[in-house]
Amino acid sequence: MIQRRLFTTVSRMVEEAKKLAGYAAVDNHVKNNQAIGIGSGSTIVHAVKRLAERVKEENLNVFCVPTSFQARQLIIENDLTLTDLDRHPELDVAIDGADEVDSDLNLIKGGGGCLTQEKIVAACAKSFIVVADFRKDSKNLGEQWKKGIPIEVIPMAYMPVSKALQGQFGGVAELRMAISKAGPVVTDNGNFLLDWKFDKVHDWNTINTAIKMIPGVVDTGLFINMAERVYFGMEDGTVSVRDKPAL
Amino acid sequence: MIQRRLFTTVSRMVEEAKKLAGYAAVDNHVKNNQAIGIGSGSTIVHAVKRLAERVKEENLNVFCVPTSFQARQLIIENDLTLTDLDRHPELDVAIDGADEVDSDLNLIKGGGGCLTQEKIVAACAKSFIVVADFRKDSKNLGEQWKKGIPIEVIPMAYMPVSKALQGQFGGVAELRMAISKAGPVVTDNGNFLLDWKFDKVHDWNTINTAIKMIPGVVDTGLFINMAERVYFGMEDGTVSVRDKPAL
Repeated sequence: MIQRRLFTTVSRMVEEAKKLAGYAAVDNHVKNNQAIGIGSGSTIVHAVKRLAERVKEENLNVFCVPTSFQARQLIIENDLTLTDLDRHPELDVAIDGADEVDSDLNLIKGGGGCLTQEKIVAACAKSFIVVADFRKDSKNLGEQWKKGIPIEVIPMAYMPVSKALQGQFGGVAELRMAISKAGPVVTDNGNFLLDWKFDKVHDWNTINTAIKMIPGVVDTGLFINMAERVYFGMEDGTVSVRDKPAL
Repeated sequence: MIQRRLFTTVSRMVEEAKKLAGYAAVDNHVKNNQAIGIGSGSTIVHAVKRLAERVKEENLNVFCVPTSFQARQLIIENDLTLTDLDRHPELDVAIDGADEVDSDLNLIKGGGGCLTQEKIVAACAKSFIVVADFRKDSKNLGEQWKKGIPIEVIPMAYMPVSKALQGQFGGVAELRMAISKAGPVVTDNGNFLLDWKFDKVHDWNTINTAIKMIPGVVDTGLFINMAERVYFGMEDGTVSVRDKPAL
């Protein structure tokens, strides 16, 4: 009973932290007449709600590019203007969550399986802003996030890519299996996902390039040198900001 | 009339050259109990025919991994044993065509739109052997092949990837349009193709990495440092062999 209450309290605290981060990002980075990338995940839900509030209250004219089916539904449900990268290949800002953020603002993303579209959209944005709760904050990648680095692969290549990953870089690569169907998770792009559990700290920039160069790899969940700023919603109800280190 | 006869003569000569190359590759590189990658295109048709002959005559036990729907059909029609990279992630040899081959054995591939699967399969092979007719032989890439470097992209990203290509590396990137349907060519992987017409000779290894690192790029038609040997069928009925330069 006490455990259950504790769990509920922690869940509420985490949800509140996500909301704080989502609100801060939208309040500080969204302006009128912008094209905005909308990320995926549970923290983004709060950001989109806040965006919808501001659009109504301030009569903003903004165009939203989704990074997933979920993001597209959020945009539609919140009566925001849906667009795409064909019409808006250059975005003013993209706001997205992360599974883990290190001290240099390198990210692991893709727990929700939308890493490729998320990286495409982030790369189109002048500013890529990350929203997360305190649990995602890490000194080094892998300290908090234990599920490995998600890697999207062409289905026919999942076996040789697994072998290449393990052979070249160590660790274990596992095909992500679906829960609500028999077989592997299939991404919105029709591909499979490997979760690569690395066994040491790597030079993430180098290894990200090396992994993407393996034939059959569509993209990796490593977002290196892309995020400009992260808003962490904290346990004490404050928001902590971390900016990209100056070069 | 003379023009038509000339055209027929040249067509026959090219077809004969393709056959010579396909036969030479199969005769020199296929042994019993091998797993073999089967490429795509018109030259491969001859290689598969020769492979089927040898399998029958010599009672060979070989397993074939296709690089495309076309290759899969060829394997089935010729009564060869079909397998895949799940069962055979390591291949003894892969035989494939090319749109252009330079003096260092760098290739442009993907005129037929199967570059990603072709690269996946080639990368799994201990020996990657190329078969081509004399028209594909070039000192520098782009001298013979004028249609540009094919680049497979996630559909939602074709516009920003085009802009990134042109902005970063010059030239012109065009979305490949289908002839027998309205709209773009869709690859066997469900993606789009850009044909990037470059406007100068690049360092192909560097640029291949740079292009693949653009979010939304699945793979490029540049096969750098992958081919071990090329068999060119020549106009005079001989076969010319070119090996990878020693490092």
